[in-house]
Amino acid sequence: MEKLSRRTTLKWMGLGAALLAVSRGQAQQTPTADQLVKGKDAKLIVLSQRPIVLETPYDLLASQPERTSKEILYVRNNVDLPGYNSVEGASLEGWTLEVGGLVNKPFTLEAKELLSLPQHEVTMVLQCSGNGRSFFQPRTSGNPWKRGGVGNVTFRGVRLKDLLESKGVKLGEKALFITAHASRQGNAAEFVRSVPIHALEEALLALFMNGEPLPAVHGGPVRLVFPGYFGVNNVKWVAKIEFTEAENTTAEQMPRYRVPAIPNANIPILPQEPGKTYPYSFTNSRPNWLVAINSFIFAPQEGQTVEGPYVRVEGVAFNDGLVPLTSVEVSTNGGRTWFRATLEGSGRSFGWVRWRATLYLRPGEHEVIARAWDAVGRSQPLDGNIAWNERGYEYNGVMRVRFTVA
Amino acid sequence: MEKLSRRTTLKWMGLGAALLAVSRGQAQQTPTADQLVKGKDAKLIVLSQRPIVLETPYDLLASQPERTSKEILYVRNNVDLPGYNSVEGASLEGWTLEVGGLVNKPFTLEAKELLSLPQHEVTMVLQCSGNGRSFFQPRTSGNPWKRGGVGNVTFRGVRLKDLLESKGVKLGEKALFITAHASRQGNAAEFVRSVPIHALEEALLALFMNGEPLPAVHGGPVRLVFPGYFGVNNVKWVAKIEFTEAENTTAEQMPRYRVPAIPNANIPILPQEPGKTYPYSFTNSRPNWLVAINSFIFAPQEGQTVEGPYVRVEGVAFNDGLVPLTSVEVSTNGGRTWFRATLEGSGRSFGWVRWRATLYLRPGEHEVIARAWDAVGRSQPLDGNIAWNERGYEYNGVMRVRFTVA
Repeated sequence: MEKLSRRTTLKWMGLGAALLAVSRGQAQQTPTADQLVKGKDAKLIVLSQRPIVLETPYDLLASQPERTSKEILYVRNNVDLPGYNSVEGASLEGWTLEVGGLVNKPFTLEAKELLSLPQHEVTMVLQCSGNGRSFFQPRTSGNPWKRGGVGNVTFRGVRLKDLLESKGVKLGEKALFITAHASRQGNAAEFVRSVPIHALEEALLALFMNGEPLPAVHGGPVRLVFPGYFGVNNVKWVAKIEFTEAENTTAEQMPRYRVPAIPNANIPILPQEPGKTYPYSFTNSRPNWLVAINSFIFAPQEGQTVEGPYVRVEGVAFNDGLVPLTSVEVSTNGGRTWFRATLEGSGRSFGWVRWRATLYLRPGEHEVIARAWDAVGRSQPLDGNIAWNERGYEYNGVMRVRFTVA
Repeated sequence: MEKLSRRTTLKWMGLGAALLAVSRGQAQQTPTADQLVKGKDAKLIVLSQRPIVLETPYDLLASQPERTSKEILYVRNNVDLPGYNSVEGASLEGWTLEVGGLVNKPFTLEAKELLSLPQHEVTMVLQCSGNGRSFFQPRTSGNPWKRGGVGNVTFRGVRLKDLLESKGVKLGEKALFITAHASRQGNAAEFVRSVPIHALEEALLALFMNGEPLPAVHGGPVRLVFPGYFGVNNVKWVAKIEFTEAENTTAEQMPRYRVPAIPNANIPILPQEPGKTYPYSFTNSRPNWLVAINSFIFAPQEGQTVEGPYVRVEGVAFNDGLVPLTSVEVSTNGGRTWFRATLEGSGRSFGWVRWRATLYLRPGEHEVIARAWDAVGRSQPLDGNIAWNERGYEYNGVMRVRFTVA
């Protein structure tokens, strides 16, 4: 028995070593986030290596409720610019920006000139329009984001309208869209995105993020950001800006990054039978433009045990910044009664707004849900699956967290 | 003194008689609703005589919470067809309907043929897009509706898509709008309105209302109704239906019956500074199409005294019927806490849905507010004035009722 046992032990040790080798081999094939992007936190979840897509684990996101640092901010590249996989800044030297289309005077700018123009700062939610996608049932195409494809960051740079004014540029009457092109340097794939001309009001040529040079992986040296718009619209490494009469026609404008809609009608999304495909066109869908109203519960976290009977529930909420949030409400009985949380700050905000509520809860298991409500009456669906769409965009269902009161 | 007094008395009597005469004269100049429209309840409020605009007093509206009878249903005519001012039906004899535009086979129909096609019934909210207008501050242009420009009625008739199918008609690819024209008979003014092609799914050529021939004043003998769409889109006395690539360009499509918007973006209305005019165009506004989500409190009514401590609060709620209502919630503390009311029925509904809640309230004055919330997360603004627009359309602010518990 002892001999056998020893042999068995050796056999299992051998198997263990083999498994270890396999696991090491896999580790070499699946680099960690910090290996893919210099300076990123190794705890980011690698959803794709090429293009690079990194998700912020939810506990890490919740640990920075004021502002999301560059080390943990999610990455959703559609294009990887060779040499730009770093959280450090990128050189403005030699970077040029073309501005044209339906304007009286097209021009080309040395991007470094932007440093001598008036700088403007905006804190805004940056969120992939696929954030929350994995909560759709059945599963959709696209990176399986949980809730970590979002962050709250501060951009600083030059307002696009200030740049136009400094150059004496006037828009044509038919300039209905701002169409931005990313750089093709190093043979990068084409990336073009159009937003409505209304976005010009807040459009910013961002050079800095969170007080430091804009990280190369987040679009440095120059990113055209539109506060209140989903991530995809904020074109990284911007090389050309055109004012156009129509939306651009490349795949990232149509059929990608769109949801079924009745154009120009007052419904956020036209619900579809989950699982069915949809014949996307410019006239039966709308782009992922304005960030959908949403709220996240940062504490308690799922599965946690907390002290009672007074339980602090807190999180963040946001909309597109076009109108103020009116309230965030929480419920612990599935929505039969809702209690208004305290919002930190009032007024319009492109950044997320913190909220908190103190609930009196008996010992045992509880589920808390939260919803935001804004001044034009927009709120969140109780069941986010109502917005099911085949590419899984714009999930903003009410968040549920189950926890135990000790 | 006595003589003087008598003379003075006579003088005042003379003035009184003159005033009486003037007031009688005004009475003759301001006919009552039943004088303007045969069969209407005399209690309807005359907002305009030409075109005829009649509002249902709120207590009368609330007294028929299931279905609004033809006698009290509001009237908002843009055009008065001579001889059609009655709640009785109008003759189908000789009425023709042209169908054309972007179709393979245009055709003209004897409207009476509709009686031999399959009939379909739908209960729907019919609401003027100016309903609630008088709650906007500052005052806007347009008829000063309170909340009585709405009703819940049952239409019966032939689905437009069934008619097309029976005629073997196919739509062209560029048929993006349904554009309907009202009859010009008797030299009536032109009235044209376009809705998105999506509305074809439910479009009904209505011949009956509430089980009787469609009242002439409400568009009989044939009205093209679009369940879920504001009143203006439901063209009365329909004479021509065209399938078009663009919205029609007459004044009732632009600039009338529109609100400021970012076309195709997810915000119900683009808020404006109250009191300012707006440069309406097809590309910076959207039409009053889908009925905005709303809820009305029918009991208690404003200023009422009710028995306590258990107080029944009830009313109706509706949206555009594209998704179900999720809940109606009421609050008696200005929105700090909300209680879910009981909804009568679930599922999608083009008609309004009754709701009720029983609240425990102490003796004294109270204010109850109500809001509806639907499955895609649409709700009402807490302060309806956020949607201020110069013509006062689509008011759907949370309703407030003050009452006393004895």
